[in-house]
Amino acid sequence: MTTTGATTTDGTHVYRFTDGCEDRNILGNKGANLVTMARLGLPVPPGFTVGIDAFQIFASDRGLPDAQIEEALAWLEETAGRKLGKGLTVSVRSSGPVSMPGMMDTVLNVGDRDTLGKSIVEIFQSWNSSRAVAYREINSIPGDLGTAAIVQAMVLGNRGDTSGTGVLFTRNPNTGEQELFGEYLVNAQGEDLVSGTRTPVPLAQLEESQPEVYAELQKLVQGLEEHFRDMQDVEFTVEEGRLYLLQTRSGKRTGRAAVRIAVDMANSGRTSREEALMAVTAEQVRSMLHRTLESPEQHTPFLSGLAAAPGAVSGRVVFNNADARTEAQRGAIILVRPETIPDDIQGIAAANGVLTARGGLSSHAAIVTRAMGKPCVCGAEDAEVDPEAGILRVGDVVVREGDVITIDGDSGNVYQGELPMREGEATPELHTLLEWADGVRRLGVWANADTPEMVADAQQFGAEGIGLLRTERQFSTPESLAAIRRFILSETDEDRTIALDHLRELQRKDFVAIFRQLDGLPVIVRLLDIPLHEFLPEGSTEEDTRESQRRDELSEINPMMGHRGVRLGISFPALYAMQVDAIHLAKAEVDANVSVMIPQVITAQEAVHIKGQINHAGLRVGVMMETVRACMRAGRLAQSNDFFSFGTNDLTQAVFSFSREDAEKKFLTTYLEKGILQDNPFEILDVKGVGRLMETAISAARDEKPSLDIGICGEHGGEPRSIQIFHDIGLSYVSCSPYRVPVARLAAAQAAIAGKNDESSAAA
Amino acid sequence: MTTTGATTTDGTHVYRFTDGCEDRNILGNKGANLVTMARLGLPVPPGFTVGIDAFQIFASDRGLPDAQIEEALAWLEETAGRKLGKGLTVSVRSSGPVSMPGMMDTVLNVGDRDTLGKSIVEIFQSWNSSRAVAYREINSIPGDLGTAAIVQAMVLGNRGDTSGTGVLFTRNPNTGEQELFGEYLVNAQGEDLVSGTRTPVPLAQLEESQPEVYAELQKLVQGLEEHFRDMQDVEFTVEEGRLYLLQTRSGKRTGRAAVRIAVDMANSGRTSREEALMAVTAEQVRSMLHRTLESPEQHTPFLSGLAAAPGAVSGRVVFNNADARTEAQRGAIILVRPETIPDDIQGIAAANGVLTARGGLSSHAAIVTRAMGKPCVCGAEDAEVDPEAGILRVGDVVVREGDVITIDGDSGNVYQGELPMREGEATPELHTLLEWADGVRRLGVWANADTPEMVADAQQFGAEGIGLLRTERQFSTPESLAAIRRFILSETDEDRTIALDHLRELQRKDFVAIFRQLDGLPVIVRLLDIPLHEFLPEGSTEEDTRESQRRDELSEINPMMGHRGVRLGISFPALYAMQVDAIHLAKAEVDANVSVMIPQVITAQEAVHIKGQINHAGLRVGVMMETVRACMRAGRLAQSNDFFSFGTNDLTQAVFSFSREDAEKKFLTTYLEKGILQDNPFEILDVKGVGRLMETAISAARDEKPSLDIGICGEHGGEPRSIQIFHDIGLSYVSCSPYRVPVARLAAAQAAIAGKNDESSAAA
Repeated sequence: MTTTGATTTDGTHVYRFTDGCEDRNILGNKGANLVTMARLGLPVPPGFTVGIDAFQIFASDRGLPDAQIEEALAWLEETAGRKLGKGLTVSVRSSGPVSMPGMMDTVLNVGDRDTLGKSIVEIFQSWNSSRAVAYREINSIPGDLGTAAIVQAMVLGNRGDTSGTGVLFTRNPNTGEQELFGEYLVNAQGEDLVSGTRTPVPLAQLEESQPEVYAELQKLVQGLEEHFRDMQDVEFTVEEGRLYLLQTRSGKRTGRAAVRIAVDMANSGRTSREEALMAVTAEQVRSMLHRTLESPEQHTPFLSGLAAAPGAVSGRVVFNNADARTEAQRGAIILVRPETIPDDIQGIAAANGVLTARGGLSSHAAIVTRAMGKPCVCGAEDAEVDPEAGILRVGDVVVREGDVITIDGDSGNVYQGELPMREGEATPELHTLLEWADGVRRLGVWANADTPEMVADAQQFGAEGIGLLRTERQFSTPESLAAIRRFILSETDEDRTIALDHLRELQRKDFVAIFRQLDGLPVIVRLLDIPLHEFLPEGSTEEDTRESQRRDELSEINPMMGHRGVRLGISFPALYAMQVDAIHLAKAEVDANVSVMIPQVITAQEAVHIKGQINHAGLRVGVMMETVRACMRAGRLAQSNDFFSFGTNDLTQAVFSFSREDAEKKFLTTYLEKGILQDNPFEILDVKGVGRLMETAISAARDEKPSLDIGICGEHGGEPRSIQIFHDIGLSYVSCSPYRVPVARLAAAQAAIAGKNDESSAAA
Repeated sequence: MTTTGATTTDGTHVYRFTDGCEDRNILGNKGANLVTMARLGLPVPPGFTVGIDAFQIFASDRGLPDAQIEEALAWLEETAGRKLGKGLTVSVRSSGPVSMPGMMDTVLNVGDRDTLGKSIVEIFQSWNSSRAVAYREINSIPGDLGTAAIVQAMVLGNRGDTSGTGVLFTRNPNTGEQELFGEYLVNAQGEDLVSGTRTPVPLAQLEESQPEVYAELQKLVQGLEEHFRDMQDVEFTVEEGRLYLLQTRSGKRTGRAAVRIAVDMANSGRTSREEALMAVTAEQVRSMLHRTLESPEQHTPFLSGLAAAPGAVSGRVVFNNADARTEAQRGAIILVRPETIPDDIQGIAAANGVLTARGGLSSHAAIVTRAMGKPCVCGAEDAEVDPEAGILRVGDVVVREGDVITIDGDSGNVYQGELPMREGEATPELHTLLEWADGVRRLGVWANADTPEMVADAQQFGAEGIGLLRTERQFSTPESLAAIRRFILSETDEDRTIALDHLRELQRKDFVAIFRQLDGLPVIVRLLDIPLHEFLPEGSTEEDTRESQRRDELSEINPMMGHRGVRLGISFPALYAMQVDAIHLAKAEVDANVSVMIPQVITAQEAVHIKGQINHAGLRVGVMMETVRACMRAGRLAQSNDFFSFGTNDLTQAVFSFSREDAEKKFLTTYLEKGILQDNPFEILDVKGVGRLMETAISAARDEKPSLDIGICGEHGGEPRSIQIFHDIGLSYVSCSPYRVPVARLAAAQAAIAGKNDESSAAA
């Protein structure tokens, strides 16, 4: 009879709230909820639902079940003790199996039988209104689902001082604290609350004026919370001292509240810990940990760029590294640059936030700030940045050195002046929740860290190890930059040896400081992976003919696929040997559990070759899986290596043949807008391409060596949807920036629970 | 007893030539051949072989089988009718199962029994000489194979005017003509011929001086050719009018001779056609078709670069396109450029060869010349090219405009002046052989062609269709370049429409000319795949602010993975629509069997999107498989596309994360030198990475659509070893540059035969 799941066996198409039918496919969500509330003995104004089955009959031009509606209406009048139009009015609302907020019509104050029939028809017809059709198309909702119509006695909050209407949350939605949190308007209807024409008072005033009503309300909504096992958002009306509940649903909440509520629910035994873990989203945890703008909608940004690293910060503008270091002594600063290069690392370290005019989400500024947990807006292309003049110009707006701006790394917006902020905080409840997560998850959670400070962050956020220590960061102090330049420019063996001795000593010191901070935590050191010409930036102060000539020799057409990673290690054997020697020297001073990994590998021969030229005694040696060929040769690579670590950023670039920076600047937006791609594959792992390739590689590798440790240390390692995929394809661990570790711990637990649920439903 | 395949059942370790044992594992190759010659009743000087089994016993310190050697020697003296040292001397030579030319000792003129025992030991011991050990290591020959020692009566060519020694080929090794071709030295030993101290005479003089000997020789060597079913290279000696044959083996020959001999052998029924096809190498066919240097070893190059496109050519040097076009009227010219860009296409078309100082094997110059069949040396980095001054300088050597140079695209060498050449030629025998190949091969052979001239070449060389027509070539005339620039720089819709109308008309004309030449041959047109900024080269004559600004906007960090291929088609829908409209307009004038293919696809959605904006009525629409993601999504892509064409050049770059030009300039040589890679993957398809990925994709695609046409149009399409792989993984066809079509036809046939042989040996 119908094309939906709605079925009737007895020819009934009109359902009273007290009939007991709770089928959402017939009643829609709202209708089914009202039945549930009625069943729980709550004071719901009486009513009935004209079912979706009736809608289907109506849609096929066979009219409404008038007799059944009339019968239900008679019952309603009897229950309410009033006749329609004589003290009784009803509301007619739609109720579908899928929420389409604001799309469907509502008719209030229906006071006669004729209008009631024209109103139900209106609700049914609004299903095919152009805005509803458009909404369904956009949200991929099938057009033949249909809707029910709810006819319900209206209760009146505007019958004097003992009447009124209100909304409440069963807990504080900002903090999660257990208290009724809401508003009440005396002698008013629901529309008055919504329209904002009158100012409601805190719920406490109801407690004072009508303590019995308040007590009953308190008892009833606590029962609702018990039943739904979640914080409820409740609409209620008091009609001459008599309380009615009109609607209840799960309430929206902040991340902090979500965590507290979930932990409370589990601690009080109302939910299991696994349910608590599933009740909090990764995004809620993420938002807890960064400072955010209090009310960004009240301010107008003067500049927009890419939301490169989350969090908001205000500070005085500086334009160069020297100023950053001195000005940082005197309060918060924002480093503003056309773009950043490795030379700028000291400035970024000193700054509280970074703003660049050029560069995408994988630009130097973006990656470094994300790893350091500092807010960053990059690629703000409307900005003209003139560091010499100390000016940032956007159209008519001119910001000078020392002026205060606010950058919002969550939206990419930039504002003049200082904006009010909300602080981030890891609450005790979050620690509890994450401990529960640790007990559930199968995936290990490690962190990427390059400095003792980042290692400390990683420890604080609960990382089990350092999965990626990038050694190229070590070449960014002025002294080590000078030494690596000397190595690159060396023309004699003697020159080269002096440069290497110097570098080895600098690296040794660096490793000692990091190993000391590790305090037993294992660490995976990645050998150098950077095109050498990046160490010879144009216009550097030491510029001479030799340098400019060598830079030309080293420059490349597609540096992303050029002379980098292990290819450098093979061309310049002394470089990797020096790095590993520095590790051994540091270990002699502070023992540490160290592995080294080789980047950009395409064949087992490369790793064999490198092992032949480094002293790998006592070190695990693994390979980065970041080229497609490594994935195709995973079985062979597993034979001769101790572990794998996927680099999904480079791997995604190779699988798509997309250069990330070029793609994000040029065409990726168009692809997303036109729906050719659903997600940015650099943010969310592409499961059908990259994911499948990884899965094939993992399976080939484990065939050779079942116990092989296989991790991922790309940026996807901290992204919840990607973590679900990593869990599914059998990785051993993820490694992400320290600030993403809490999110990763939760997401890994959610993946494990989802996997278990899938299994049990498959078994059922 | 031994670790090799050598076995004895009767305790015999010494074998007379007449004993009948022909086991190469015991006698080695040379020993086995002598037994064969003896069995054929040829006049071989008598002798015996101390077997590899004896070597193994000797190697385990259990001495030589002295009694058996003494017994065989007694037989030898009796057969020769002379005693050792009294009219009889013997030679002692090694004979292994694997040839190690020049590595093992030889002892001649042994005249007493003691020396004979010291000589056999010497031969055996030379197996472990340092040079032999090194040779085996380099060539991966197992060290325990061992060698036999041949003891043979020496015959003497230096016993007066009725004695002498000679070498001959049973056919002309240059042309393959059926005639005895060799040299003879009267009253001389073999060493005299080899040492070059005396000048031998043509074999004809033996016919004059000793006609009976010559007639016998002729009869015998023809018998050898019959037996071995191949041209033989024979050593012989005449001792006082009596003919002895000392050695026979297959003779080395030119490509032209190889083809003629193979066809002759099959036509005369001595071999099958399949054997004839296997007897010629692809390299021999390739070398036949290009002009080559007559004797390059006699000349010293003043410059070396990459062997970018095969063949040799001499000509006057020109430095720019205008000169190329005018000077080409007056004879052969070589275009010399720092590097070439699309603007240079007219100059390249006019030139007979191209020399560049910069750019690798996939540079513009290399690809264009290879496709046009013109010799090219590129990336000759020692060259300073100053087009303004009209000077090419290499160290002290200065070549000016109008000077004659010779470039050798087979070696990458460049010479001053004109060098003697040997012409390339497709002989009638080659046509016959390739027709046989066509009857055997399963792979189709198509050609890549962009102009009517190239289509004509493709037809001449037997291509079955045009598998790749690159439309970007159509944008390289000054007029179309101006139009595409106008499109790129357009700021209004009107501007854009004018530019597109102009381009459409130019493309229509181009297609008409090509379709006319096709004469029914099917053609696959690839839609535009070039980063737009390449159309705005720096320093172009029309340079203005707008152009330079737009170029900056379009420039990319990694253009290889940037805004190109289908991504352009999606960003600028009018571009592909214009190209397809031009095809329809041209078809209306000259009907043609046209398919279009979409480059750089990563998801089925792209192709769906493009199909929605082009008029593809009556056209097959396929996708290039040149990204890894396309391979991972092959099943899905097969559902909605008419055919696939693999682009293995880009695919190899993506699988390796190697930018070809950067890799070949920077580190690929190191990788090959150090044995980390066995082959350059851009020349020979990487079977373990790229090949496996292709195989997976083909299998997924054919699961969806078993009849799907799947080809390959990268440069590997004309490379013989890669063609073997393409056959094995089930491609439908290869498409390569017209000049490689004959090679591809042969290689495809050889792949089919090898596949059949594998199958029958697997079945056996």
